[in-house]
Order: sequence, then structure tokens, then C-alpha cells
Amino acid sequence: MQRSVFFISDGTAITTETVGHSLLTQFPAVMWRQQRIPFVDNPQKAADAVRQIEAAGERDGVPAIVFLSIIDDATRTVFYSSHAITLDLFEDFLDTIERAVGMTRGGAVGRAHGLADTQRYEDRMEATNYALSHDDGISPSYENADLILVGLSRTGKTPTCLYMALHFGVKAANYPLTPEDLERQRLPTQLRHHRDKIVGLMIDPDRLAQIRDTRRPGSRYASLKQCHWEVDAAESLLRREGITAFATTHSSIEEIASRVLAHLGMQREMY
Amino acid sequence: MQRSVFFISDGTAITTETVGHSLLTQFPAVMWRQQRIPFVDNPQKAADAVRQIEAAGERDGVPAIVFLSIIDDATRTVFYSSHAITLDLFEDFLDTIERAVGMTRGGAVGRAHGLADTQRYEDRMEATNYALSHDDGISPSYENADLILVGLSRTGKTPTCLYMALHFGVKAANYPLTPEDLERQRLPTQLRHHRDKIVGLMIDPDRLAQIRDTRRPGSRYASLKQCHWEVDAAESLLRREGITAFATTHSSIEEIASRVLAHLGMQREMY
Repeated sequence: MQRSVFFISDGTAITTETVGHSLLTQFPAVMWRQQRIPFVDNPQKAADAVRQIEAAGERDGVPAIVFLSIIDDATRTVFYSSHAITLDLFEDFLDTIERAVGMTRGGAVGRAHGLADTQRYEDRMEATNYALSHDDGISPSYENADLILVGLSRTGKTPTCLYMALHFGVKAANYPLTPEDLERQRLPTQLRHHRDKIVGLMIDPDRLAQIRDTRRPGSRYASLKQCHWEVDAAESLLRREGITAFATTHSSIEEIASRVLAHLGMQREMY
Repeated sequence: MQRSVFFISDGTAITTETVGHSLLTQFPAVMWRQQRIPFVDNPQKAADAVRQIEAAGERDGVPAIVFLSIIDDATRTVFYSSHAITLDLFEDFLDTIERAVGMTRGGAVGRAHGLADTQRYEDRMEATNYALSHDDGISPSYENADLILVGLSRTGKTPTCLYMALHFGVKAANYPLTPEDLERQRLPTQLRHHRDKIVGLMIDPDRLAQIRDTRRPGSRYASLKQCHWEVDAAESLLRREGITAFATTHSSIEEIASRVLAHLGMQREMY
């Protein structure tokens, strides 16, 4: 079963698509044919979008589904003329919030991913630069880190740090445990001073071997025996150092980031 | 005016918070006191969350606002016993989609940011590694790039590439125009072969000088005169090469990414 879906917004359509996806994953039997139409900020662009929506519906033989987040009334109402099934992400909720706070909405377009809060945006960019310059143990100092991820090579430290920097403005450094650390069963001195902001990432040895093998096929580095040894040694090291570790084998970077921030009690606003 | 808001989900609560933010930005006069409670996946955790919500409402003297996305009925209905104003992001929309497709929802918890589609997740991680290893002109080859961002130093190329990699699985390389490129008024040979996948990023010279000055205060690199010269030369070079450029001065990385992907006709699903 095929069905056309459109994500339409006066901004980037990123929030709209995110919400749409989380709803569509509840219907895995449907083949969703998805299209994003960003920056629809006047009735003319809305009319163009409606033409695409109607064409898709005619081709499919069933009306398309449209996820909509547009503030301007004149632009939004253009979509109500189409045959599509329209899910308006703003209208009902904004009405409810207006009643709750006793104010009317501001009416600014596309603020969700715009530059509304310049300081917060700059914090995110600075945190991203921080993550890049404190990646993979290259940092001489961890004084300014908000948190430090520690784990074996290929456990997802780098993408998780980048994600936390880009979306939460968190200065996240990461340090890969070396063979020397594992032998000595302790963290390097410059990290031991910061144990309260360190979180460990762990992984199943089988999965680790699989990931490493795609990078260096047949190497000792990727062998199951080596991975088993490293995982055992890393678990024991983190336990001795009193550091909480999260399993990453079945988790996405979003899930890991969410757990790490909750563990450290960091209630940063996300972006 | 202060008001407590909770983002509550059986998964990471990332989607929930994203939607909540885009609605709350419509009420800039309210001081929102925001809290995220992820992984609420049983009635016991829901009851704990309700206690926090009620305490916040009593402290504020007005009921809290709760953005909710929880699939399990027994868990979700716990929230309906609270005094909070609850905006359920799933319920109404899922009902509408069920009617549209003639199927009932699958009922899986927290799929939005889980590892449901392993291949797509691995593509995103591979793209992130690609962006890191093809950052800032360090790449010897651009054969495997999906797209290449070209621009002056400090125009937002790196964070935009990382964002597109993490969220769209796009292999995005970037190349900073050098003084030699600007003097010669042409792109390096290895880039000229890939002009169809190059997009330029431009910026106002005043803003460029401001950004550079926070990195190297008082330097020639950050001087207004130097920035003016570089921006003029870069604009002229990109025009000669027939490359479309986007202004980044008043745009967030999400907006730039959205425009770049639309320009290249890349309808990648976002994540």
C-alpha cells in the first residue's frame, strides 16, 4: 500500500517532518512516499504546493496526507481547499495554549529553526567547535567541558558529542580508552580530576567487532578475541573508577544523548 | 509571567520538545520554565512525573502545561488525572491517520528516535564520519560527496555539513576558499569536476569580521577591509563558476541545510 505524504511549513519544515515521521512509524505496513516543501510563506507558494498535493492524490487514487505548520491564516487556509487529509500541527494546540496563558499568539513565521535567540545559537556553534577540537582524546585539557564521554574506539562517542553540541549547546569532549589505560586499569590523570562529569559508553563485543571489521577488515583490531578483551577490561576500569556507563548497542545517538544528559541532571533546552 | 512546561515521552522526548518549542515561541512574553522527562514507559514512571507536574503547578499558582507523546494507553491516561493542561501530540493525529489508511496503529514505543531502521542509521553515522574526514578542504577527493559547500572561512560550512550528515545521511564535504583561489578567480581543479554538486555560502562582510574577531581579535584576518575584499572576491569567483550561493548572515544551519537540499533537488528523508 502506497500513500503520498507532504510536510509543509513556512520555515524549514524540519519540525513538521520530525512530528510526521514519529506518527507514520506507527503504520509500518504503509509505503509512505514523502515530500518536504519548506518556506511556504505566502498564498501563491501555497497554491503551488496544493497543485503538487492534488497531482499526487490523483496518481495514487487516494488523497494525500498533509502535515501542516503555517502561521499566516491567508496562507494556511489555501490548503483547506485541497482534497488532502490535512493535519494542522499548530492550530488546535495554539488555541489551547492561548486559553491557558490568556494571550494571543505572536504570529512570527518560522521561528522554530530560525535565529530568534542569537545567543543560544552562538552557544550551539561554539559547542560544536568545542566538540570538534576535543574529539578523540586530542584535548590537552578538559577544564571547560560540560561532560566527557569515555569508551573504546567505535562506541559512538564522536557522533553523540556532535549531536549534543549541535542541539543542546553542550560542550561535550570525548576520550577513547587506550591499550595502556586498559592495562593500567585507571583513567589518565587529566581525566581523573573530572570524574563527576564523565560518562562511559559500552557496547557488546560482537557488535564492536562487526563495526570495526567494516573499517579494517580482518585486522587484529576487529577480531572477536580482541574486542572481548577490550570490552571486559573497559567495564572493569570504569567500575573501579566509579563511572556510570550506558550500553550503546541497541541505542541511537539521540537515545544515548538523552540518557547521558538525564544522568548528569543537565536540563539544557534542546534546539 | 512564569509558567511551567513539561515535555514527556516514552522515548527520548526530543520530538515532543521540538514541537513544544515551536509552539511556545509564539508566546514570547511568557517566561517558560521547561522540563524534559524522557523514557516514561510505564504507569509507575507516569505517576512520578504527575507528582512533579502537580508540584510545579502549586508553586506557580497556575496549572502546568504538558506536551505528551506516549503510545501505551495505561501509561498515557495516568496524566489525565493531573490538573495540568495536557496537549497530546499523538492521540488526535493517530486517530485521523488510522481513518485515512484504514489500519490501526502499531503500538511500538519510542520509535521516533530509536534504531528502527538500522540501515538508515548506519548511513547517518557513515555520513557523519564522511563529513569529519572531508571537512575544511582536507579531502584529496570529492568523488563520493553528495554535495560540497564552498565559502570563506567562518561562513558556517562545518556545522551545516555535520547537521546534514547527522539528520539526512547526506555525505557533505566542505572547502574553504583560499587567498590563492580568490586571486586566481577560479576553483581548484579537483572541485571544478564536481560543479553540479557545489553550493556556495556567502555572508555579510560586517558579520564575518565580527565572527572572526572573536576568534583572532585585532588580526588582519578579522579586519573589515580584509573581509570586504574576501567577500567581493568570493562572490565574483562563484558567479564566474556559475555556482549558486546562499546568504548565511541571518540564517540558522537548519535553514541553510533546508535551502541547500531543496536547491539540489535532494528529497532525503530527515531523521
